[in-house]
Amino acid sequence: MSGEQLQQWHHIVFERDLQALSEILAEEVTFRSPFVWKPYHGRLPTFIILSTVIDVFSDFQYHRQLVSGQTWALEFSARVGDLSLKGIDLIGFNDEGKIATFEVFIRPANALLALGEEMKQRLAEKGL
Amino acid sequence: MSGEQLQQWHHIVFERDLQALSEILAEEVTFRSPFVWKPYHGRLPTFIILSTVIDVFSDFQYHRQLVSGQTWALEFSARVGDLSLKGIDLIGFNDEGKIATFEVFIRPANALLALGEEMKQRLAEKGL
Repeated sequence: MSGEQLQQWHHIVFERDLQALSEILAEEVTFRSPFVWKPYHGRLPTFIILSTVIDVFSDFQYHRQLVSGQTWALEFSARVGDLSLKGIDLIGFNDEGKIATFEVFIRPANALLALGEEMKQRLAEKGL
Repeated sequence: MSGEQLQQWHHIVFERDLQALSEILAEEVTFRSPFVWKPYHGRLPTFIILSTVIDVFSDFQYHRQLVSGQTWALEFSARVGDLSLKGIDLIGFNDEGKIATFEVFIRPANALLALGEEMKQRLAEKGL
């Protein structure tokens, strides 16, 4: 993990820079959601999901950053409505520095389910 | 993270070495479960929960290990009944090499809820 890549990722999330988000995702990125087992394939669904969840979370903060080779685990906290949650973004980069895999874990169960309901509604409006 | 510590942890999990599990937990360990927000404090509840979940999971495997200072993120997969799941063990060590914080994240939602039901029953039998 380069500090520059991490800084860029924070810029995308906290400034909601959707152009930069689209550019950092590999065309063939695989996204694994905290709700369903089946992965999503490709830049467009991954972009739609990530840009939507940025809007649903409030008080979003990153905490520890763990690394192994080209994979990051980013610990975060946020709120959905009045529920607090913690999460992990497990992000794998390819050799071109693009995001090839993105997997999200969230606890506890009540916040996960509340987030799932909210995401389902918003994604249905976007045809996903 | 030392390779020795990781090897010891794998030994505990895969050989179900409960004596070693008890010894590696700090007296004041904090455990954060994937189900509820409120943390558990102390070696005994943490020991009971971890030793129980070892029995509930089948086909348990560790995958990538990510590190930051004295914190590990261990990626795992397992099954609960016929449901597949992925998870992260976020484990923090203190200066004595004991586990001071243990936080577990699990996806997807259906497997998390199934695991929660099974754990609830087993922990109730153990008075937790």
